Amino acid sequence: MLTVSQRATVLPASPIRRLVPYANAAKARGTKVYHLNIGQPDIATPECALQAVRENRVQVVSYTDSAGNLSYREGLVEYYKKLGIGLEPRDIIVTQGGSEAILFAFLGCMDPGDEVLIPEPFYANYNGFAQEAGIKVVPIPSSIENDFALPPVEEFERRITPRTRAIMICNPNNPTGYLYSQGEIEQLGAIASRYDLYILADEVYREFCYDGHKHFSVMQLRGLEDRTILMDSVSKRYSLCGVRVGAFICRNRELVAAVLKYAQARLCPGTYSQMAAEAALKAPESYFKQVYDEYVARRNFMVNALNAMPGVYSPMPKGAFYTQVRLPLHDADAFALWLLEEFEYQGQTVMIAPASGFYATPGLGKDEARLAYVLKIEDLRAAMETLAVALKRYTGR
Amino acid sequence: MLTVSQRATVLPASPIRRLVPYANAAKARGTKVYHLNIGQPDIATPECALQAVRENRVQVVSYTDSAGNLSYREGLVEYYKKLGIGLEPRDIIVTQGGSEAILFAFLGCMDPGDEVLIPEPFYANYNGFAQEAGIKVVPIPSSIENDFALPPVEEFERRITPRTRAIMICNPNNPTGYLYSQGEIEQLGAIASRYDLYILADEVYREFCYDGHKHFSVMQLRGLEDRTILMDSVSKRYSLCGVRVGAFICRNRELVAAVLKYAQARLCPGTYSQMAAEAALKAPESYFKQVYDEYVARRNFMVNALNAMPGVYSPMPKGAFYTQVRLPLHDADAFALWLLEEFEYQGQTVMIAPASGFYATPGLGKDEARLAYVLKIEDLRAAMETLAVALKRYTGR
Ligand SMILES: Cc1ncc(COP(=O)(O)O)c(C=O)c1O
Ligand SMILES: Cc1ncc(COP(=O)(O)O)c(C=O)c1O
Repeated sequence: MLTVSQRATVLPASPIRRLVPYANAAKARGTKVYHLNIGQPDIATPECALQAVRENRVQVVSYTDSAGNLSYREGLVEYYKKLGIGLEPRDIIVTQGGSEAILFAFLGCMDPGDEVLIPEPFYANYNGFAQEAGIKVVPIPSSIENDFALPPVEEFERRITPRTRAIMICNPNNPTGYLYSQGEIEQLGAIASRYDLYILADEVYREFCYDGHKHFSVMQLRGLEDRTILMDSVSKRYSLCGVRVGAFICRNRELVAAVLKYAQARLCPGTYSQMAAEAALKAPESYFKQVYDEYVARRNFMVNALNAMPGVYSPMPKGAFYTQVRLPLHDADAFALWLLEEFEYQGQTVMIAPASGFYATPGLGKDEARLAYVLKIEDLRAAMETLAVALKRYTGR
Repeated sequence: MLTVSQRATVLPASPIRRLVPYANAAKARGTKVYHLNIGQPDIATPECALQAVRENRVQVVSYTDSAGNLSYREGLVEYYKKLGIGLEPRDIIVTQGGSEAILFAFLGCMDPGDEVLIPEPFYANYNGFAQEAGIKVVPIPSSIENDFALPPVEEFERRITPRTRAIMICNPNNPTGYLYSQGEIEQLGAIASRYDLYILADEVYREFCYDGHKHFSVMQLRGLEDRTILMDSVSKRYSLCGVRVGAFICRNRELVAAVLKYAQARLCPGTYSQMAAEAALKAPESYFKQVYDEYVARRNFMVNALNAMPGVYSPMPKGAFYTQVRLPLHDADAFALWLLEEFEYQGQTVMIAPASGFYATPGLGKDEARLAYVLKIEDLRAAMETLAVALKRYTGR
């Protein structure tokens, strides 16, 4: 009998997508659904990026360099220089979203069966890319008890095997909003040196660090240039999710040459996409200031509203635009479903992302959910009011 | 010691890319290099596609549907309908180039260690995607002796093992330009049924069929709807290589659902890219007529010029825009390198793609090269003259 691959069968659908049909059904019944479940900002893309595409005069939409246009990579070098990260264009391979940078990192650093240590909860799509590359994710639990700080060094060491090749972090973190400190990054550097591992850092939320906290990149670690890899993206930084432009960045020439083979196989990143991304590098400071202020206001509003609900706890996230909260119930999956299937308040409900999908260790995070603050304050207000009522009414705990 | 993965080490760099540094060195010496090695058409993109992007009014460049915009998939359904291929939007997953459709097909149909039968010579990047997916390409030699026709059924049958899951063809073929007949496609269908295999067809050159030959798609095979998979692309059809838009197409719902998981992991295809691709569906007949006439003229010119060179043989390709020729020498790799490193004629040389990279069986195709007719006739004329002189002068045979 003709069947799909075993790997496709076992790969879980994204924890958020699973609920989409129920959200659609709720909408079909006329219920307004506030989406706290997704990372699609409603923030406008910088005008300079939009304009570059509108005013383009390309006549033949040709393949570009497999590593990405040189002019764009040179622009990126300038961008990183301002952040205190010294790079050359040849350290950069432009990818189709941060997504592809992650896949490339796995393919370049690891062979099938190799292991990568990742603090959990983590961005659920890492599972998909790991499965495609045939590698194994070994989770290191972090806990809401200490606001999802980096697990102690011993927790990493305990899990290191002869197949361990890398440690991966997301900083600031999706789903937790946690921002790793310079000290924590240095601890990771020390483990990586001691056990001869790569450090892969997903820093796609770099621009979103709050309360005066400065982002410290793995690329700023001294003496570890050969083992630090940055996976980046313009999706969130410039609200350019739809251009699919990211970057695989590393100063280890041998590794870049290896990854370039995979980049060449898929030919190149997009022409219009790179135009937009390159132009976005010129976005004015005022753009970031405005976006930043907006997110701080949203975060403060949402986190305070959450912590005012009986039994709910949200850390105050220092970065990204998510918070992972503890709810006063035992099964956030069932609650998320109930919100869409059975509940409504003044014709409204909310869609949340149950946290279980962000943990690899079975059973963890059952009473947690990730909430994104990507809505306007007035919508967040309605969403929080609705959630508070839902928690009062919910009897399924 | 920190090293790159074993798989990255063993993956051969693209057979064409390997020569690029030598071509650049030749150019730096002031030599004009005619590129017969690549598949980047110099043909203009349809104005309607360019215009759609220039006139777009998007303000937030958001993620699109992971399967691609519904309006675009509906447009594709119309496009295929005109070709006699009945589809629904849910049979289509829009991909980042045909490249990603190939990777998705491998991931969805096969598990690591599974085998796919592919007539060789074949598009070299299949190797990269197969390696990423951990599957094994089992080549079935086709031969210039009979102009690269489909190998006999027994050649397929001899190589079928318990791990064989699929047969893959490229039609019209890159690198050979061979167009499989309806009869040959039906033979493949019969093997696939008998041995319960998928048929994967890369039909990205569908629009390029010459001399009145009509393209017969695997999607037109009756009764095999569950096992036929189409991998398509707008790159060549509309000279839209740089938008990175392709499609994975299949009527097997279970397989489409499986592949959608991988599509969801990488989030979506590009926003501007899909705009261009959707608008290109409206390209007028006159566009295709003009492109077609241009390619026929180029093909006739180049193939006749090649066959006029002593000892050179080129079949008359019925499709795509390549021909794979036999050269009067023993090592086309050495010849291709010599052309760039040592030869010049009137300040000119040519870059060709040695065929060895398109064969998986070691030793095959050593005296063959792939030549693309993607240059204007006047350039092809100079290139052919240069190649003829080179073959006369070359002593390395
Ligand atoms: C942590 C993290 N990494 C990577 C990505 C991939 O984004 P993209 O492929 O759009 O760059 C996302 C998207 O949500 C993300 O949240
Ligand atoms: C036979 C064949 N398949 C697939 C592709 C992939 O093209 P794209 O990813 O641009 O659709 C190419 C590109 O040259 C090709 O020649």
